[in-house]
Amino acid sequence: MDFDVIIIGSGPGGYVTAIRASQLGMKVAIVERENLGGICLNWGCIPTKALLKSGEVYEQLGHLGEYGLKVEKASFDFAGVVQRSRKVAAQLNSGVGFLMKKHKIEVIEGTAKLEKGSPAPKVVVALKAGGTRTVQAKHVILATGARARTIPAIGLEPDGERVWTYREALTPKTCPKSLIVIGSGAIGIEFASFYRALGADVTVIEALPRILPVEDEEVSKAAQKAYEKRGLTFRAGASVKKLSKLKAGVSVEIEVAGKAESLDAEVAIVAVGIVGNVENLGLEALGVKIDRTHVVTDSHCATGVPGLYAIGDVAGPPWLAHKASHEGVHCIEHIAGVPSSNLNSPIPGCTYSTPQIASVGLTEAAAKEKGIAVKVGRFPFRVNGKAIAAGETEGFVKTVFDAKTGALIGAHMIGTEVTEMIQGFTVAITLEATEAELHATVFPHPTMSEAMHEASLDAFGLVLHV
Amino acid sequence: MDFDVIIIGSGPGGYVTAIRASQLGMKVAIVERENLGGICLNWGCIPTKALLKSGEVYEQLGHLGEYGLKVEKASFDFAGVVQRSRKVAAQLNSGVGFLMKKHKIEVIEGTAKLEKGSPAPKVVVALKAGGTRTVQAKHVILATGARARTIPAIGLEPDGERVWTYREALTPKTCPKSLIVIGSGAIGIEFASFYRALGADVTVIEALPRILPVEDEEVSKAAQKAYEKRGLTFRAGASVKKLSKLKAGVSVEIEVAGKAESLDAEVAIVAVGIVGNVENLGLEALGVKIDRTHVVTDSHCATGVPGLYAIGDVAGPPWLAHKASHEGVHCIEHIAGVPSSNLNSPIPGCTYSTPQIASVGLTEAAAKEKGIAVKVGRFPFRVNGKAIAAGETEGFVKTVFDAKTGALIGAHMIGTEVTEMIQGFTVAITLEATEAELHATVFPHPTMSEAMHEASLDAFGLVLHV
Repeated sequence: MDFDVIIIGSGPGGYVTAIRASQLGMKVAIVERENLGGICLNWGCIPTKALLKSGEVYEQLGHLGEYGLKVEKASFDFAGVVQRSRKVAAQLNSGVGFLMKKHKIEVIEGTAKLEKGSPAPKVVVALKAGGTRTVQAKHVILATGARARTIPAIGLEPDGERVWTYREALTPKTCPKSLIVIGSGAIGIEFASFYRALGADVTVIEALPRILPVEDEEVSKAAQKAYEKRGLTFRAGASVKKLSKLKAGVSVEIEVAGKAESLDAEVAIVAVGIVGNVENLGLEALGVKIDRTHVVTDSHCATGVPGLYAIGDVAGPPWLAHKASHEGVHCIEHIAGVPSSNLNSPIPGCTYSTPQIASVGLTEAAAKEKGIAVKVGRFPFRVNGKAIAAGETEGFVKTVFDAKTGALIGAHMIGTEVTEMIQGFTVAITLEATEAELHATVFPHPTMSEAMHEASLDAFGLVLHV
Repeated sequence: MDFDVIIIGSGPGGYVTAIRASQLGMKVAIVERENLGGICLNWGCIPTKALLKSGEVYEQLGHLGEYGLKVEKASFDFAGVVQRSRKVAAQLNSGVGFLMKKHKIEVIEGTAKLEKGSPAPKVVVALKAGGTRTVQAKHVILATGARARTIPAIGLEPDGERVWTYREALTPKTCPKSLIVIGSGAIGIEFASFYRALGADVTVIEALPRILPVEDEEVSKAAQKAYEKRGLTFRAGASVKKLSKLKAGVSVEIEVAGKAESLDAEVAIVAVGIVGNVENLGLEALGVKIDRTHVVTDSHCATGVPGLYAIGDVAGPPWLAHKASHEGVHCIEHIAGVPSSNLNSPIPGCTYSTPQIASVGLTEAAAKEKGIAVKVGRFPFRVNGKAIAAGETEGFVKTVFDAKTGALIGAHMIGTEVTEMIQGFTVAITLEATEAELHATVFPHPTMSEAMHEASLDAFGLVLHV
């Protein structure tokens, strides 16, 4: 036996699981075909945040008068903005390399394929350096992630020039003057927010009736309004019929409420979802169950094939790095037979636009669909002292409580830095906090987080500052 | 009986208590001698945050190259910066007026004095408009707050020109080129941070061996280092012997480790603590117990004099608005006989400097003094993905757990926006969270708040990204 566990894919799900396995005393290998850290560190979460930060700071330069400040000739060096984002990704990528060394995890650079084996499938790696290496472990964990969905039939297929997925959108040569973003999930909205910050005309197309469709309806509405104030344009309930390339730029034919419309722009970004990386892994031959590009797993991430597990994006939504690492840690702790948290922990979701969106637990509608009687609270940042002092009054906090038990079951936020605040509600839901416990918690003054307290009070008729 | 309850002082402790009393169906009056909202809204927490925000944004203009951005001739309009801060205070002040009306709380403008009465002392108000009004209620709550401590004998007494307390420091006519801040608590450090951001030469003098002496020692050290990088100068362990006015400016004689030193500057800010507003209220005649300028109260904020309660700064440290309103809500709920949280909830503390400081619960040293065996965790932002992407890598998170029970008993943070993050640990301590529960909590990626998770893992040898 070469290893106790082999992990295929080194995104956060993969490498965190590898570290935890090493902490548990296992001999670990991790197979990576491209970049250590996977999409998240190299082509996703991290470099987009670097771009967005540059965009945010640049956009703020247009509002300095509010703070009694003044500058002349604010400008950006587009290549510099992009380079910085690549440097950040490179730093984190090398950080993962350091962590693998520190924990004595063997990194095998190449593309893995599984073959029948015992007690777990054998892993045959077509090495980057050339040749093949076959390794065997007691346990194999698939963490191969996902990639952008494309629809070639109607032209939603990147060409690296005028039609982009997140990959191309992260390393553009110039900043497009006009942009169509197809898809208004977190990825689409973040790119729309970034390019708008730098001055592009951006139109976002969403097939569902509202943007950010997984968010609470009130948040979706407020987000659209806030984005529109920044000059973004939206077409919701719009089905894309065809994307055509023009001499310069693209044209997108859409249909909204039975009416055809055509939109032109320099570039289109396709952000219509994610497909799991399940191909060319030999999964079919092993009899691994796959449901719509995702490996089917049980409550311990097992695939049903002895010794084979799957975590993260390849095992299905939500497609979030922290969901992947949570599953990975659970999976390896379960394998090691040590006590572990279950997989039902609430998974927060964040969108790093201006303003930001963050949520955890059930939306009001989802709770009602489950037949739960709810008490709902709201508190707007426009009457929050810190928000007023900072000039950041956009947005609100919404809480959803189970009316019968008093337990917090959902929280939804839109506003500045709410992505850093949502953890408080996540802790609360994980600990099954009731309204009485949240009311008894002393939130520091003056902070925007006081709005979390107020929204909890509001659900029970006890709001203070409205 | 004129009212169910009369509250003397309309700072956050006072007006929040008034609102809660009104929600409980009581007939409420609030007496205010100066500004609705008290020091906090008008001369403290809120206007300082407005100034600090202008300072932060201005300071960032010096580092735009990091983000691929460029401006020419960054400048500030000092009067505009100060005016904005006053406007913010005025907006919140009028907001409290609105809330008082909405909740049908009678605002009596004037200076209150207590006289013997039953079932509670009578309240005699020397009205702002002239004349006297005597009102009687079943319950009287003192929320008269506190003011800056001054030491005239050695010259630590504001003159409004060259020697300032927070009042003068909030409404300066020009930005001093050099500044000595006496006292390195939150107030002193915040002014030092603001004036340094606008380019002043600032020296901070602290009598105790380290700055921010109530914070965990590691945080104090890191804070001083970070502030020094920004050009601030410190003299800790320094006793002030005398402050003298020069022809232009001030001179401060100090003694550090037995060595005399003299420091000159344009202006000195005196921030050497707080004294409770206990004078001229008739407390002595009523037999109210006072200990070093603070009213002595029991676990329900009662003074021992029938019907008389005290909350907030006047009832002793910590001198924090959220401690005051927490006490007030408890006090009035106890009076009304409804279930209430006890007063032992952990009270977070925040300092809004660059970088920010936030903490809750016990420091490592305080826990050890109590004889608690601790497990301590740390995680630096310099290896946090979001912090790297945002270019905000200063600082760290430190956690203190009870080694025997696994309960989180303290958390200490320094870094960008940690004042908005500390609520998560506050929720955790309030809910008596153990390490297993914090480890099971899914913190969203990529956020700086992941450092909270990592610091919790680190205390148990399970840190991932170091």
